[in-house]
Amino acid sequence: MRERAVVDLAEKLSQIDEHWSPKIVAQVGDVQVKLARIQGTFDWHSHATEDELFMVVEGRMKLEFRDREVWLEQGQLYVVPSGVEHRPVAADEAQIMLIEPAGTRNTGDRVTGRTVEAEWL
Amino acid sequence: MRERAVVDLAEKLSQIDEHWSPKIVAQVGDVQVKLARIQGTFDWHSHATEDELFMVVEGRMKLEFRDREVWLEQGQLYVVPSGVEHRPVAADEAQIMLIEPAGTRNTGDRVTGRTVEAEWL
Repeated sequence: MRERAVVDLAEKLSQIDEHWSPKIVAQVGDVQVKLARIQGTFDWHSHATEDELFMVVEGRMKLEFRDREVWLEQGQLYVVPSGVEHRPVAADEAQIMLIEPAGTRNTGDRVTGRTVEAEWL
Repeated sequence: MRERAVVDLAEKLSQIDEHWSPKIVAQVGDVQVKLARIQGTFDWHSHATEDELFMVVEGRMKLEFRDREVWLEQGQLYVVPSGVEHRPVAADEAQIMLIEPAGTRNTGDRVTGRTVEAEWL
């Protein structure tokens, strides 16, 4: 368990120096809050059992689904239900918050070259 | 289960017309995201089994503990561990996000005149 400290989103995000590599900044029960910087188009994936909440802290992003897309602007959030295939896209860099069960893999049920194990920041 | 829709934090917060009455806007597994407007000093309480994350969306707030206090500015978050007595304070109105297990009572393990059951917004 981490020492409890105030987490400043902008300050934490400024410490992240790679895209698509979420860092854990808080935990509530079994759910973790992660921060990430993203740019470009991620891989299609789904999470068999985990819901995944995306919130835009800075910039904008798009969540692509097989049959539609959802745009998220700063200060907006969306929950991708478990089992639903999706891929995040950001033409320009976006800074985002994720809320998802601890152990949720960034590439979902597949292990790819972009799979990373989230670490605490 | 609610229909999945984009949640705009500012727009949702503008629909809340009373203080200290958190509204649910999203759920991830067993954890809910709530929004609240707060002003003044709330009651001392603790939650036996639930961690509670406070994040300031607009304004600033203070979390008082029996032995210390924690200030939170806009864009900052803090997790109050289960079992720790606390009370939120906001001299001027603040708009906040809470992340906590579904069913977490705003007044913790006590029922008081300020107890409200959170509803979806």
